[in-house]
Amino acid sequence: MTVAPTSAQSLARRLASVTAHLGPSTMSRPKVVVVRSLGPDVMPLLDRPDLDLVSWPHETKACGRQWLLENIPGATGVLVMLQDKVDAELLDTAGPNLRVVSTMSVGYEHVDVQRLSQRGIKLGYTPDVLTDAVADISVMLALMAGRNVGETTAIVRDGEWPTSPWSPFAFCGPQLSANWIHTTRTVGFIGFGRIARATLARLIPFGFTHCLYTGNPSSPANPTLDADVAKQYGLGSVRRVQLDELARESDVVFVLAPGTPSLRHIVDEAFLRQMKKTAVLVNTARGSLVDSDALARALRERWIWGAGLDVVEGEPNITAEHPLVKEPRCIVLPHIGSATTETRLGMATMAVKNLLGGVFDEPMPEELNTAQ
Amino acid sequence: MTVAPTSAQSLARRLASVTAHLGPSTMSRPKVVVVRSLGPDVMPLLDRPDLDLVSWPHETKACGRQWLLENIPGATGVLVMLQDKVDAELLDTAGPNLRVVSTMSVGYEHVDVQRLSQRGIKLGYTPDVLTDAVADISVMLALMAGRNVGETTAIVRDGEWPTSPWSPFAFCGPQLSANWIHTTRTVGFIGFGRIARATLARLIPFGFTHCLYTGNPSSPANPTLDADVAKQYGLGSVRRVQLDELARESDVVFVLAPGTPSLRHIVDEAFLRQMKKTAVLVNTARGSLVDSDALARALRERWIWGAGLDVVEGEPNITAEHPLVKEPRCIVLPHIGSATTETRLGMATMAVKNLLGGVFDEPMPEELNTAQ
Repeated sequence: MTVAPTSAQSLARRLASVTAHLGPSTMSRPKVVVVRSLGPDVMPLLDRPDLDLVSWPHETKACGRQWLLENIPGATGVLVMLQDKVDAELLDTAGPNLRVVSTMSVGYEHVDVQRLSQRGIKLGYTPDVLTDAVADISVMLALMAGRNVGETTAIVRDGEWPTSPWSPFAFCGPQLSANWIHTTRTVGFIGFGRIARATLARLIPFGFTHCLYTGNPSSPANPTLDADVAKQYGLGSVRRVQLDELARESDVVFVLAPGTPSLRHIVDEAFLRQMKKTAVLVNTARGSLVDSDALARALRERWIWGAGLDVVEGEPNITAEHPLVKEPRCIVLPHIGSATTETRLGMATMAVKNLLGGVFDEPMPEELNTAQ
Repeated sequence: MTVAPTSAQSLARRLASVTAHLGPSTMSRPKVVVVRSLGPDVMPLLDRPDLDLVSWPHETKACGRQWLLENIPGATGVLVMLQDKVDAELLDTAGPNLRVVSTMSVGYEHVDVQRLSQRGIKLGYTPDVLTDAVADISVMLALMAGRNVGETTAIVRDGEWPTSPWSPFAFCGPQLSANWIHTTRTVGFIGFGRIARATLARLIPFGFTHCLYTGNPSSPANPTLDADVAKQYGLGSVRRVQLDELARESDVVFVLAPGTPSLRHIVDEAFLRQMKKTAVLVNTARGSLVDSDALARALRERWIWGAGLDVVEGEPNITAEHPLVKEPRCIVLPHIGSATTETRLGMATMAVKNLLGGVFDEPMPEELNTAQ
């Protein structure tokens, strides 16, 4: 007799689905709420007999606050996205069973971290796995902003290439890489964490020679560590400096700090006015860090050469009439910094593993220390 | 008595401009024809009393064939652009005085090199100085093609960001840099000269581990040299391979070969059909190297992920209706590979120095060996 092959796991699952109808025994399975489908590669990780999974079935459409509030009561764990506010209301509605919040993001400004800490709820997030994808796009935006890609792709798209004849200095922008006129190149980082360092590494073969960064004012400067980084990358210098010096000296400025309220508009009119006329600004962190009105004016009045933004304050409500979208020398992407297939699969997988770790009291791959 | 300071050079120039009106003595000054204004930074290099300079005065408008033919008779040197054909007609019209042709370009497919060689006319060109600018844009296009920049910038430009909500896999493309799923990365170069190597160097911190390239069939493979390059960059391997293998194995293919007739459509349907579905093609060399129709079909039918082109066959006559311009996953730039201020100044300066070297029988910074 031939039978279709059945794995032990699928048998257990079928049995579990039977016992699920028997009443009280289901109470022993922890309930988890997942606000999105994470696709056919990741969702099977949650398909376990020892879990009471409540999952919004759609991938491209959000569940909405109401669905989440209706489904979260009694949950032991919840997996959320950057768009889902984890606040007192949500935690109160979830009730005392909640042990873990897992967010599929490196940022956690949507989560009331202090309240989680007070209630002893763990927070999982997804750092590291998106570092390379964001560093890639940071370098891309620096190149695009310098090389007038907004204007030049528009010429081709609008059919103006045939009537835009070549001339020696047409479409010329400042060169990112070192060259016969500028043999040194200086990069400035507002925030000098993992993504900044991965971006710095990528810039080395472009001939960058100096690195400036701003540090957390509460931590002391560490010239020894700076010298180590300089040696590691063969740089002339790596220095922690004040914002003014960073603005004045950098050929390209990368904004890669967290979106905390204290850093709101750290790039403002005063900063932009001090930048080189040939410099470009790249923001792949959070929109709130850059004053959009000041940046639009800086571009319009040519205080700086160009800008490359993956994030804009107030996103996604950024219309075609937004002053930065209308600036020809401003590249605006719709927050796709971590949007590679590999990285999003990695983030989704890590978010699920954080969730499971928290629910089953096993180690979480990336748990934020909420007591900080 | 106070007089305005006058340099010896300006005095000499004023005297020369007087003698220019005296008749026969001007015959001793070599005549040079320059087809474009090279701007205020470079033109003064040609402002010398010992030169009879005939220069088209405009920078953004070409002189046209007629002007060149009318002015070239008797010239000792001519400085041309990529758009100016240097053929038998032009050389015959110039007459026997012509000693040097200087082109402000690294390519010289517009020049009848063999005929120059037969007539003992030197050819100056501008290699090296544009290497970094083109390598920069090559990396930029590889990133743009992978990360769906055509589609995502259109969403923002068209005001669709507010209604294109975030979802876990929206806008995801293949990641250029190494990642948790693909820990090795392979780059393929069609043509492995200066620009290819500068591009390779830039890819190393993105986690590239293997390099494939196609060589000139007339020169033997050199595994020892390949091993040296691998060691220099810390690569797992560098190998000269056949086109088929390069197409099959590469995560990104850079076309960086010269635009010689024998290489026309080296990237054709057969090549594109063998590429990985997640691979991208970048052409920053010459449009003729890629079969546009085959590439448009490859993108439409998803044989490959995307393409980034700085050059297109038949340019600049590329309209908005061109099949490659209409492909959402094809980035098309209007041949701006060397268009940075620094590089174009370098190319213009080198072209002038080549011209002067040839005219005054002094060393030319970059003379092509036309006897090859």
